[in-house]
Amino acid sequence: MISQLQKARSAYQPKVPAAIEGATKLAEGKATQSVADQEDIKKLFPNTYGMPIVTFEKATGETKAEAFNVGIILSGGQAPGGHNVISGIFDGIKKLNKDSKLYGFLGGPSGLVDHKYIELTSEIVDEYRNTGGFDIIGSGRTKLEEVEQFDKGLEICKKLNIKAIIIIGGDDSNTNACVLAEYYLAKKTGVQVIGCPKTIDGDLKNEMIETSFGFDTATKVYSEVIGNIERDANSAKKYWHFIKLMGRSASHVTLECALQTQPNVTLIGEEVEAKNQSLDDVVTYIAEAVAARAAKGLNFGTVLVPEGLIEFIPAIKKLIAELNDMLAANQAEFDTVAADKKIDYVVSKLSKENAELFKSLPTTVSTQLALERDPHGNVQVSLIETEQLLAEMVAKKLAAWKKEGKFVGKFATQHHFFGYEGRCAAPSNFDADYCYSLGRVAALLIASGKTGYMSSVRNTTKPAAEWLAGGIPITAMMNMEKRNGKMKPVIQKALVKLDGGPFKFFASKRAEWAIETAFVYPGPIQYFGPTEVCDQPTKTLVLEH
Amino acid sequence: MISQLQKARSAYQPKVPAAIEGATKLAEGKATQSVADQEDIKKLFPNTYGMPIVTFEKATGETKAEAFNVGIILSGGQAPGGHNVISGIFDGIKKLNKDSKLYGFLGGPSGLVDHKYIELTSEIVDEYRNTGGFDIIGSGRTKLEEVEQFDKGLEICKKLNIKAIIIIGGDDSNTNACVLAEYYLAKKTGVQVIGCPKTIDGDLKNEMIETSFGFDTATKVYSEVIGNIERDANSAKKYWHFIKLMGRSASHVTLECALQTQPNVTLIGEEVEAKNQSLDDVVTYIAEAVAARAAKGLNFGTVLVPEGLIEFIPAIKKLIAELNDMLAANQAEFDTVAADKKIDYVVSKLSKENAELFKSLPTTVSTQLALERDPHGNVQVSLIETEQLLAEMVAKKLAAWKKEGKFVGKFATQHHFFGYEGRCAAPSNFDADYCYSLGRVAALLIASGKTGYMSSVRNTTKPAAEWLAGGIPITAMMNMEKRNGKMKPVIQKALVKLDGGPFKFFASKRAEWAIETAFVYPGPIQYFGPTEVCDQPTKTLVLEH
Repeated sequence: MISQLQKARSAYQPKVPAAIEGATKLAEGKATQSVADQEDIKKLFPNTYGMPIVTFEKATGETKAEAFNVGIILSGGQAPGGHNVISGIFDGIKKLNKDSKLYGFLGGPSGLVDHKYIELTSEIVDEYRNTGGFDIIGSGRTKLEEVEQFDKGLEICKKLNIKAIIIIGGDDSNTNACVLAEYYLAKKTGVQVIGCPKTIDGDLKNEMIETSFGFDTATKVYSEVIGNIERDANSAKKYWHFIKLMGRSASHVTLECALQTQPNVTLIGEEVEAKNQSLDDVVTYIAEAVAARAAKGLNFGTVLVPEGLIEFIPAIKKLIAELNDMLAANQAEFDTVAADKKIDYVVSKLSKENAELFKSLPTTVSTQLALERDPHGNVQVSLIETEQLLAEMVAKKLAAWKKEGKFVGKFATQHHFFGYEGRCAAPSNFDADYCYSLGRVAALLIASGKTGYMSSVRNTTKPAAEWLAGGIPITAMMNMEKRNGKMKPVIQKALVKLDGGPFKFFASKRAEWAIETAFVYPGPIQYFGPTEVCDQPTKTLVLEH
Repeated sequence: MISQLQKARSAYQPKVPAAIEGATKLAEGKATQSVADQEDIKKLFPNTYGMPIVTFEKATGETKAEAFNVGIILSGGQAPGGHNVISGIFDGIKKLNKDSKLYGFLGGPSGLVDHKYIELTSEIVDEYRNTGGFDIIGSGRTKLEEVEQFDKGLEICKKLNIKAIIIIGGDDSNTNACVLAEYYLAKKTGVQVIGCPKTIDGDLKNEMIETSFGFDTATKVYSEVIGNIERDANSAKKYWHFIKLMGRSASHVTLECALQTQPNVTLIGEEVEAKNQSLDDVVTYIAEAVAARAAKGLNFGTVLVPEGLIEFIPAIKKLIAELNDMLAANQAEFDTVAADKKIDYVVSKLSKENAELFKSLPTTVSTQLALERDPHGNVQVSLIETEQLLAEMVAKKLAAWKKEGKFVGKFATQHHFFGYEGRCAAPSNFDADYCYSLGRVAALLIASGKTGYMSSVRNTTKPAAEWLAGGIPITAMMNMEKRNGKMKPVIQKALVKLDGGPFKFFASKRAEWAIETAFVYPGPIQYFGPTEVCDQPTKTLVLEH
């Protein structure tokens, strides 16, 4: 059974750039170079380095190609619009030649290695148009990094006569797509590899890739529920709501939601790190907003916290690093310590500075850090319920201030975490159009013989017809970074820029939002209404362009 | 600043029953009696008992009245559509006479007692049409029960020349509205009192009140995010999501969300109680579904849990009752017990049966039950994170089954609680229309001189034009119940009926939903699309009528 909305929505025909609606021709730009470490990257990617940016332009007549087969892979966490990338590829290759075939590798990159796949027919693809989720073929987190994997992949490509593989994934997956492209090109296998930029976290973007898909829809879902909570706070007038949002390594999601909903306090991890703030600095900042509103009789509000906040705090980062090293070095001894003595043991082994910080944490958090470790023996930062931790520490500080007469109100809290609520939402019109277009462009890149490119759709703050379609060499986005102790070529992760338009706008408003009740209630994503309601890009995109 | 959706939505003109669009006439039905305890209720409400049900019918000409003033009160928790009740009342009294005035008492019933109010002008009302929240005048939980409160209220009514008070609230607030109506009538004050049925919990309904407002919108918001989580579960295929939903004393919200999203497991508090299930029965039931899916290779799923579940389990109810009595009796001694010995102390004082149950609970829960008590000294059941408790206990059971070979899969969990996300959502078309109509009808009831009535709009599974408008004597919904040790007249709370249409449909499907992946993804509330997407009543309403 499918819902009425899904039924109605399946008829939606995504908009595409006018340039690729009919016949197209390829225009090549100038040679590119990587964003940094040019010599290293060039050495590692001799065959795919320096290729030009390409764009597709309107042509006359019809663009046709020999029939060709394509294999697709969904890699990593779900993001709204993945199914539309696939329907875009499907329609794209069929337009070029109706005998072209699309194969889907099952369960992520491992499907390529283990030869698990299905043919995606029009019956299957039609069922998934404009829907959320990655369930059409499933996703997975296997990393394509080893030559053995590449060779196993090549086997199945040869067997199925696959001309190109499209990898739909985040920065790491696209890095690996490029490594694979380089390998297949060096070995003259004839198999091309194309990437598509996906991640709700919004951290895969740069000058040429304006946004990763899914970010638009996910932030709109989170903003809907944040707005509802704000309205509740402003009606009940009795709670401060601490709301944690998905996004481990970048705070784009939190920043976008703040721009949409104007909460009282928003923490941006990149700023906390840049200003070298301590946990106490963060807690004091929130407590000051609470006290200022309390002085006006407003004992309610909202605080947005990025999931990765705790890891952005330099002091906590150092504590965690020392904890990991210390526990690794003393593993055998630590295992013999009685459960109720482990915390004391940890304190005794840490440097004075880190021991103090460790002791200042609420017991639930210090226990978690000392006792729960992942299979590699590392402390599990992701288990820390940052929103609760902050709420508790703010309460403690306010209680102290109350005694000093610095705080005169009440402070009661609720906490929330939104992540899974948005990752598989049905794509907004923007993501439906953007993803479908990315898929159509990927098909054209393959037909043009390109490999090591990422599908690119730009000018996205304009109506879809004016969008620019093309391909960007993946090497152009790379630099060298240390991963697990080794220097590796990777796509540079896009963090929130403190001198960028979105953050600067936010920073210019936040003092007012902190003290006033300036909440905005965006409401749910609309698919059928007026264009100013249904077709708006994110505030981040608008302020960046 | 208001959002684009709010801007577009402010132009929406809610639909009303055709019968009240133009001129109306009042038709009186037969005398009523209370649903039970007729003699007692009659004695307590000599002036407002036995009044007839009234309906408004289309008339010719124009219906006009002398100018009159109305005071409104929002009582209790927020529910979507409260602002539309108010705009309906406003338009209703202005239609009858443009010089009529509407006053809003601020911050709930205490506004009436403390004489805190504003006049609601068209400028103010227009800003809030079709929006969520109760922020136009705020709400509160003060109970109107004492004669002193009634007399203070009367003072301000006389001062403002208020002809009638409208109380927008749940079962308790409407009970109090009736007590107030009776008092004002007995004292021949000339002030009428009308109630409006509000609660997202859906537990204020009966033969004549088909649904309480807000239930439609809130369950649609919850179903949106549950559907998104289901799609994520079905894409990632690695988590069981335990989702707790608002609803302390009835499981209507959980049942409606289950009907909309078809999760694998749904717990209904009323059934757990009727079947006298233990906590272990509930845990076993969930674990069996997990094991059955694991046997098919499906190590993911969704479980819906009503907020009040734990209080529906008879054994837990008994444990809590004994805990409360025991702790009250031993307060002084208990206070002297060292923190880490309190649990042992509690165990030593409980009956054998309850001590066993108490010891079987996860430590986090038993600690909470023993240590955290409310200002009245009672254990705080509402603090128990039922969704986490169940997830932990299911994990424990599955681990045991694994050793016995009865479980062959993996079991990883995520948990969620949705409540505040839906209480202040902008009303769906249904709630926007229903609430506005309730307000319009309330205005007509006042003009007809009625008091002690609840505004009623029925036939709500049909298009709005065919809805029936009228008033129901509140006494007709009452029976006698024990509250804080005393028998009191109260509106009978509507629990999920195990022989009712919605539950029976659910029960006929749940075995299939448990083992299959039969998820439905309803998506967000739509305001502008096709009618089958935008204007559907809840499945509960449809299956009840």
